[in-house]
Amino acid sequence: MHTFRQRLLESAERAGSWLCVGLDPDPEHFPAGLDEEDTLEFCLDVVEAVADVACAVKPNAAFFEALGDVGEDALASLIESMPPGLPVILDGKRNDVGNTARNYAEAAFDVLGADAVTVNPYLGRDTVEPFATYAEKGVFLLARTSNSSAADFQDLMVGPDRLYQAVARKAMEWNREWGNLGLVAGATYPDELAGLRKICGDGVPFLIPGVGAQGADAKTTLRKGGDSEGRSAIVNVGRAILYAGEGDGWQAQVEAAAKKFAADMPFLDARN
Amino acid sequence: MHTFRQRLLESAERAGSWLCVGLDPDPEHFPAGLDEEDTLEFCLDVVEAVADVACAVKPNAAFFEALGDVGEDALASLIESMPPGLPVILDGKRNDVGNTARNYAEAAFDVLGADAVTVNPYLGRDTVEPFATYAEKGVFLLARTSNSSAADFQDLMVGPDRLYQAVARKAMEWNREWGNLGLVAGATYPDELAGLRKICGDGVPFLIPGVGAQGADAKTTLRKGGDSEGRSAIVNVGRAILYAGEGDGWQAQVEAAAKKFAADMPFLDARN
Repeated sequence: MHTFRQRLLESAERAGSWLCVGLDPDPEHFPAGLDEEDTLEFCLDVVEAVADVACAVKPNAAFFEALGDVGEDALASLIESMPPGLPVILDGKRNDVGNTARNYAEAAFDVLGADAVTVNPYLGRDTVEPFATYAEKGVFLLARTSNSSAADFQDLMVGPDRLYQAVARKAMEWNREWGNLGLVAGATYPDELAGLRKICGDGVPFLIPGVGAQGADAKTTLRKGGDSEGRSAIVNVGRAILYAGEGDGWQAQVEAAAKKFAADMPFLDARN
Repeated sequence: MHTFRQRLLESAERAGSWLCVGLDPDPEHFPAGLDEEDTLEFCLDVVEAVADVACAVKPNAAFFEALGDVGEDALASLIESMPPGLPVILDGKRNDVGNTARNYAEAAFDVLGADAVTVNPYLGRDTVEPFATYAEKGVFLLARTSNSSAADFQDLMVGPDRLYQAVARKAMEWNREWGNLGLVAGATYPDELAGLRKICGDGVPFLIPGVGAQGADAKTTLRKGGDSEGRSAIVNVGRAILYAGEGDGWQAQVEAAAKKFAADMPFLDARN
């Protein structure tokens, strides 16, 4: 079996970086001349521009759903058209009771063909299991998210831990059985991020949003979120790459932006 | 403005019950002769059979997504074809950071035209606001869900409260501003349900799954979850109505099952 974790590591080595590019298509920000109908084309052009330096791409389902049919079709075609060796993390933050969550897992893995997904853990083990039993896929549980109100519930003290730490500990307990869980941990909270890495140890992949438009620094993020080898920290950059280009040369500008971020999160030597 | 809460109350009065029918299309359980391609037809036939006695219907997005294009199209057409006066609660348990959650809100309310949605509160206020600012729509936050592993995180003690109670208290705090929040609370945990009603008081709508296939009793549920007037408790029944029929007369059997459940959750006199 060629697991998500293995595919990710190979891809990061190939790309030479831990950069993940967030595909959040918003027609209002497309380069001039492209509109909603061009969502698929825009995304494919971005993927072409970043594929050499990105270890993964992360389409966020919300942006596609907001575009109705055009968006849903674009998401399906986008994943189908991905270059080999570039894993797709479908960011949907899905969750439901077990019987229903199974349908979300089928939608993400069987219908769309994603390599990994994000899952909201609020419903407990039931909601994680239908995803995690796809052994060759990856599952990232939300732990400490990058938004400003993340603290509302995630920082509540439960015994000696914050809730997000309790989620991480429980995830690691489940992971002894499944082995394919990772965490979502925002770069905007570097200390929390470093604390989560301590809980999880080496090898467990972290998906880390918050660099770029949300303000966090790439180097710091990789240092805080990476494991003892400086690995396993997938650093997502969305808007700051996606909408870096304007005019005829927009694709080259996107490529340049991706290269710049990628250089700050190298596959090797991250600890030097 | 004709709010969701008002529309719901009018619909419950019209139907004479607090029954909500869960639309979770699973082709494996369709009556003989119908298959995946007939998902829309099946759902519309169910709606026709139950509309007179149901105060709302609740399509769950997972079941539609698992069917790919056919399912996505069916969900859109289903909501479009709903009889007037029958509110649609789109059960998607969506959540994300604010900028992204706005897209989910647009997808649910502007693209699909749902009357209310379910939202997972783990990300805090940011994730709720983009939905709640649609003042004429309803937003149900997951509090205590009906699944067996709900306790994993929702029951953790945070100060004097369980996490799900802390979520309810925070929701009521936000509701002073928005006024259109409700809670999801499983019928399978009647004491927790009653406790949540105490926190929220009268008028706040509860969406209560767990009656029927999941085993909870309809009368008890309305008594525990209803407010002091025996109202505001939307009791969802899915599989036990949806798949109650077989053969040529399947629609009549679905209608009979819905009537039976509806009789146990009357609009008036719930306290007598």
